[in-house]
Amino acid sequence: MYNYPKPLEKLIEKLSRLPGIGGKTAQRLAFHILSMKDDDAYGLSEAIASAKKDMRYCSVCGNLTDVDPCGICNDAGRDRSVICVVESPRDVAAIERMREFKGLYHVLHGVISPMDSIGPEDINLAQLIVRLRENDEVNEVIVATNPTVEGEATAMYAARLIGPSGIKVTRIAHGVPVGGDLEYTDEITLAKAIGGRREIS
Amino acid sequence: MYNYPKPLEKLIEKLSRLPGIGGKTAQRLAFHILSMKDDDAYGLSEAIASAKKDMRYCSVCGNLTDVDPCGICNDAGRDRSVICVVESPRDVAAIERMREFKGLYHVLHGVISPMDSIGPEDINLAQLIVRLRENDEVNEVIVATNPTVEGEATAMYAARLIGPSGIKVTRIAHGVPVGGDLEYTDEITLAKAIGGRREIS
Repeated sequence: MYNYPKPLEKLIEKLSRLPGIGGKTAQRLAFHILSMKDDDAYGLSEAIASAKKDMRYCSVCGNLTDVDPCGICNDAGRDRSVICVVESPRDVAAIERMREFKGLYHVLHGVISPMDSIGPEDINLAQLIVRLRENDEVNEVIVATNPTVEGEATAMYAARLIGPSGIKVTRIAHGVPVGGDLEYTDEITLAKAIGGRREIS
Repeated sequence: MYNYPKPLEKLIEKLSRLPGIGGKTAQRLAFHILSMKDDDAYGLSEAIASAKKDMRYCSVCGNLTDVDPCGICNDAGRDRSVICVVESPRDVAAIERMREFKGLYHVLHGVISPMDSIGPEDINLAQLIVRLRENDEVNEVIVATNPTVEGEATAMYAARLIGPSGIKVTRIAHGVPVGGDLEYTDEITLAKAIGGRREIS
C-alpha cells in the first residue's frame, strides 16, 4: 500500500479522528490545507491550539469562557433571580441567540444516564445546589434539559433536589414546534402539547 | 447576537473556511476539539503546522513529498523508462494503491483550461520536456490526465510537444468501468469503449 509522506499521513490520520470526517474527507481536507496560503494554514493550527489553551469552564456557571467568571455571570445587567439549567454550552448559545432570556445559566455538562453509568454526582449538579444556597436572590430555576428520557430524569432529579429550598423549579414547555404540522407530529409530543395547553387570554 | 468567546469564535471561523464544512459543522468540530484530550488537540494543531512546513513538491516530478527528490524518484527499483503524467498528487496515490505501475511520475498540478485562463505555461509541463531531454532512458510517456475536456486537451497538447523527440506517448484507456453496466453507461464512454476495443487473444 502506497503511503503518503509522513507529515501528510499524520495530518490525514488526525483529521479523520474528528466526528463526521472519514478517511476520504480527511484526505481532501489535508490536501486543501497543503494548498492553503501559509497564513491561513498556520492560522488554523494556531486557532486550535489557542482555543484549547484559553478556553475554560466558568467556575460559577460551568459555561465555556475565556475569562472567569464568564461574561454572562459578570454582566451586571442580567436578572440574577432566574437561573436556566442546560446540558451543554451549546444550549447556552442557542438560548442566547433568541435574545429573550435575561437571567443566568447553569451548565450541567451532561445528563443523568444510568445506561452510560452517569450518575447525579458525575454532572455539575452539586455546584448548582451550592450556588443556590449562597445566592438567596434566586427565586426560579428553569430546567431546560433536552426532552429525552435522560433529560427528563435529570429535570425530575434536579426539581426534587432543589424543592426543599422553596425555590420555584420550572420546566420548559414541550409541544408542537412553530411552523410544525400536527399531522406529522409524533404522539408523545402531541400528548405533551395537549397536556401543556394554556387558556387563550 | 450572542457571540462565543473570542478564541472559540475564531476557531469556528477558521474551520468553516475548509471545503465542505459549513457553520454548523464548524461549531460541532470546534466543540469537539475543546472536549478532546490536550494531547490530541495540540497534536492536531501541530500536524497541520508541520505538514504545511515539511511538505514540498519534488523538484524532479512535482509530487508532494517531505524529502527532495521524492521517495518514488529516489527508488532505484523503479522502471526509469516509463513516466506517467498525472494532474495531481492525489492521482499518484490512486495509481500507487493499484500496485501495478512500477515507473516514475510527473505531476502537472492542473490541466490546460482556457476557460479558467490556465495555459500550458501555467502547469508543470515545461519541466517534463526538460526532464525527457535530460534522461534518454525514457521511452514511453503515459498521459493519465482525467477524461474531461481539459484533461483530453492537455493530453493532446503534451503528445504534440513530446512527439518530435520520438518518445512513445500513450493515453490510458477509457471505457466501461469494471462492475459497471452497459445500460447505464453514458454515450461518450460507450463510444470510447467501442472505439478502444481489443482483440480477444
